[in-house]
Order: sequence, then C-alpha cells, then structure tokens
Amino acid sequence: VILVDGKARKSLPATDRGLHYGDGVFTTLAVRDGKACWLDAHLERLRAGCHRLGIPAPEEVVLRRDVEAVLEGEGNAVVKLIITRGSGGRGYAPPEPVTPRRIALRYPLPDHPLAYAEQGVRLRIADARLAINPRLAGIKHLNRLEQVLARAEWDASATDIPEALMLDAKGRLIEGTMTNLFVAAEGVLMTPDLRECGVEGVMRRVIIDEVQAQGMAIQIQELYPDILATVDELFVANSVNGIWPVIACGEYRYHPGRLTRRLQQATGLCD
Amino acid sequence: VILVDGKARKSLPATDRGLHYGDGVFTTLAVRDGKACWLDAHLERLRAGCHRLGIPAPEEVVLRRDVEAVLEGEGNAVVKLIITRGSGGRGYAPPEPVTPRRIALRYPLPDHPLAYAEQGVRLRIADARLAINPRLAGIKHLNRLEQVLARAEWDASATDIPEALMLDAKGRLIEGTMTNLFVAAEGVLMTPDLRECGVEGVMRRVIIDEVQAQGMAIQIQELYPDILATVDELFVANSVNGIWPVIACGEYRYHPGRLTRRLQQATGLCD
Repeated sequence: VILVDGKARKSLPATDRGLHYGDGVFTTLAVRDGKACWLDAHLERLRAGCHRLGIPAPEEVVLRRDVEAVLEGEGNAVVKLIITRGSGGRGYAPPEPVTPRRIALRYPLPDHPLAYAEQGVRLRIADARLAINPRLAGIKHLNRLEQVLARAEWDASATDIPEALMLDAKGRLIEGTMTNLFVAAEGVLMTPDLRECGVEGVMRRVIIDEVQAQGMAIQIQELYPDILATVDELFVANSVNGIWPVIACGEYRYHPGRLTRRLQQATGLCD
Repeated sequence: VILVDGKARKSLPATDRGLHYGDGVFTTLAVRDGKACWLDAHLERLRAGCHRLGIPAPEEVVLRRDVEAVLEGEGNAVVKLIITRGSGGRGYAPPEPVTPRRIALRYPLPDHPLAYAEQGVRLRIADARLAINPRLAGIKHLNRLEQVLARAEWDASATDIPEALMLDAKGRLIEGTMTNLFVAAEGVLMTPDLRECGVEGVMRRVIIDEVQAQGMAIQIQELYPDILATVDELFVANSVNGIWPVIACGEYRYHPGRLTRRLQQATGLCD
C-alpha cells in the first residue's frame, strides 16, 4: 500500500527531487498490535532532517494521518515515510516556492529469525566506508548509496549474517548499514559519535534515554575497530528490530551480556 | 516530455530505488540543431557509472532510442537520462534479479546570458564541502545533496553568480556544483584530481582530449584554494554550457585568457 501526498497512488512524478538528487529524508517505523512504535521520535527526526535540508516540514498531524491511512487498519506492519523537496525543474537550485512531497509505504514486519534477538547475530565489517560530512551527519536523508554498496558486499539471502558494521573515511567505527552500534567494556556503555557521519537512529535515542533514566553512564565518543578486541558486549539496534546482541564480528566472539539483556528488557520492541 | 522505460509517462513507481536511496546514475546533454552533443561520451559515462554501482547497464541502442523519442523531433533541447536500479522491496539489499529503470526527460536549453561565455562569470566559493569517497568518486550518481546544499547558499535567481566552486573535506578545490574546474598558470593547464570525490564531466574529458590532441600538457593534480591567487586563467565547463571563463572568484579577479579562448574555440558547444 502506498500513499503519495495522502492519496492512494502507486507512483510519483518523475520530476521529484527525491529521485533526481536524493533531496529528502525518510524514516522507517514498526507498527505492533496497532501501535506505531516511537512515532513521536520518528516524527521529530523527520522534522529535524527537513530543517537541516531547508525543506518545509509537513505538519505532524498530516504525517500521523498518513501513517494511519497507509495502515488501512493493519495492526502489524512497517511504515516508511519519505519527505522530499517535491518537484522541480532542471538544476540543483531549489524550486521557489517548495512544495514538499510525502510518500508513505506499508510493508510487512520483517521476518528475521527470533534467534537474532535471543541468541545474537554475526556481523561483517563492510569494505565500503562512510564519507565525512558534518552537514549531512545524523539525519536520515535519501543519499544512501554508501549503505547500498555495503549491503551489496554479501549475499542478501545469507541469513547467518544480517548486518555489517561500517567504518568512516578516518577508519572509525560508526554504525551498521541499518542499525546503530553500542559496545560495553567493564560496565561502561559506549556508542559512536555521529557528528561527522552516520544516522542518529530513533532506537539509539531510546537506548540513550533509557540508560540515563536508569542512572547509568553512556559515553558518546570516537570508537576505533581495535576496541572490538577488548569489549565485553556488543549490540546493534534499530527501532524496527530492537536490540540484537552480537556474538561474532570479524575474528572476535562475544556472548550476549548482562547490559545487553537489561536494555533489551527495558526497551522492548515498542514504546 | 518524460519517458519512463521508453514509454510516455509523467510518473514512476514509488518503489523505485532511485527515490529511496539515490541508487542510480544520470547524465545531462545538450541537443543542438538536431545533434545530441557528445552523446557517445555521455552514454559511455552512464555505462561506467552503472558498472561501478553494479547496475546492469541498459543497452546503448535503447538509450539512443530514448534520446530520440523524448526529443519528438525537437532540435534544440536538454535531455536528462536517469538509470536506476529499478524497484525493490524494503532494505538496502539489491533486488534479485535487478530490472533497471530508465527515465528520459526533456527540458529547454538553458537561457544563460551569452555574456557568460563571452565576458566570463563570477564564482562563489561554497561553504558546503564534498565528502571523500573513492568508491563513488567520478561517477554522476543520484546522491547529490552536497550540490543541493551548495546551490542553496545563494539566491537561485542571482544571475550575476551562476556557479560556486566546492572544496572537499580535505580543503582541496574540486569542481563547481555543475561544472568542472580548470586553471592555467604560466601556460600550463591544470584540473583537479577526482579520484576521491567529484564528477568526471563529459566536457572535462572533451577538454583533456583536445588539449592532448594539440600536443599541450595538462596536469591532473591536487589543487588547493591558494592557487587562486597565482593562476592566470580560470574556467569552468560542462557539456551543456561549454566553457565559461571566470573573471572573479572570491577576492580574486581574472581576465579570460588566451588558453581559455583557444579551448572555447576548439571545443565549441557540440562535437
């Protein structure tokens, strides 16, 4: 099911700047038992992304209506919301005035094995690197070729490795192709600083808030791959799949740890 | 006029990976007096871009047919060809098999003042930087938010400044938002190395070939902004507008030089 600007459509104008330049933002959220999970945080991130790109953000109430409409009463689904700068003529200059376009798509919930959350996942380290761009860092924009290249490095149907970690151009550990990364060493939780590249995932925010609410410390900092040799726990997270403990990454092996389990319990798969 | 996969359409499926990820390449060419200018080079660059991204390139004969069809007999126009990885499901993994999608759009030739080519243009230096990514460097892919950000830095209707130069994350001069950059000092022509970022323009190739055919040297090298203080000539070029001498860039002033005029003459606006 697809809505374009709130209307049931299968297609959008070929003049859309989302197609021509990736000029827009998106978010992907889970709907479980009729509840759109962490919807407020998803809408807030869309708004922040639009603001960064100078796209007039659609009103929140309109986006909420899109989510409800695209669901058509379906209680369990994934909804992807895309906001583009709308149609334009030739050339990079933004049209005047801008009429942003909204695309809402419904997909089934992913059928990842339960074992991913319970027993943990194995990760690759991608060869494709994330470029450094502070102006685009953090937001979930539509320029995602780096993730496409990274995901194309291994067989899409290989369910034994559902995710790859990506380094940036400076060799720092940043995130997975579709998840954020957390590590724990001696009881201290750490997650990469995303001021130069990467996507600030909704689940990352949820986890950071949860950790702080529990009075625990979390360090947002530069992480280099050598830390993989010393950490006790490693997990990746996004708002659709929740937290996946990592049991293998490259040559290293881990066990799902106490901190990981505690955060899985605390955050769950919906708010 | 717009063709999608060779058929007259105004729209394309909202599942297209060009929209979702910028997963594709494009080229923009001028048609003058019924001739598609440097078409072979444009098609070759599309093919090379598809190859780099792992997209099966449409056959050349099909793309030539698209150009002809979208023109509908119009002898003077701009044609933009987009090739995407086609439609896919949710997630970065490429669909299996991939059915690439072709979009051909026709626009009027730009109405830039003749003075741009004759008297020269004034340039800005953009604040937005180009990120370093050797895997994506050179090809004209659909992830163009950096150019959008740079072009949004000044008034789109300000005809006195038609272009901005962009530096990369390491502070090197790379290109304009829609042009490649050439400078000349003491009779030696130089253009930035594009192995880490930037777009290898068709006109850049035409100019390099022309320079070499004339037995002149050209240096493809790292250029830093301090070179702007010492060069004798500066010009920007793309295949739609040809060569524009630069008369002002930031605080520096130039005169259209002998080398610039010679190359304008030699390359013209069409092959």
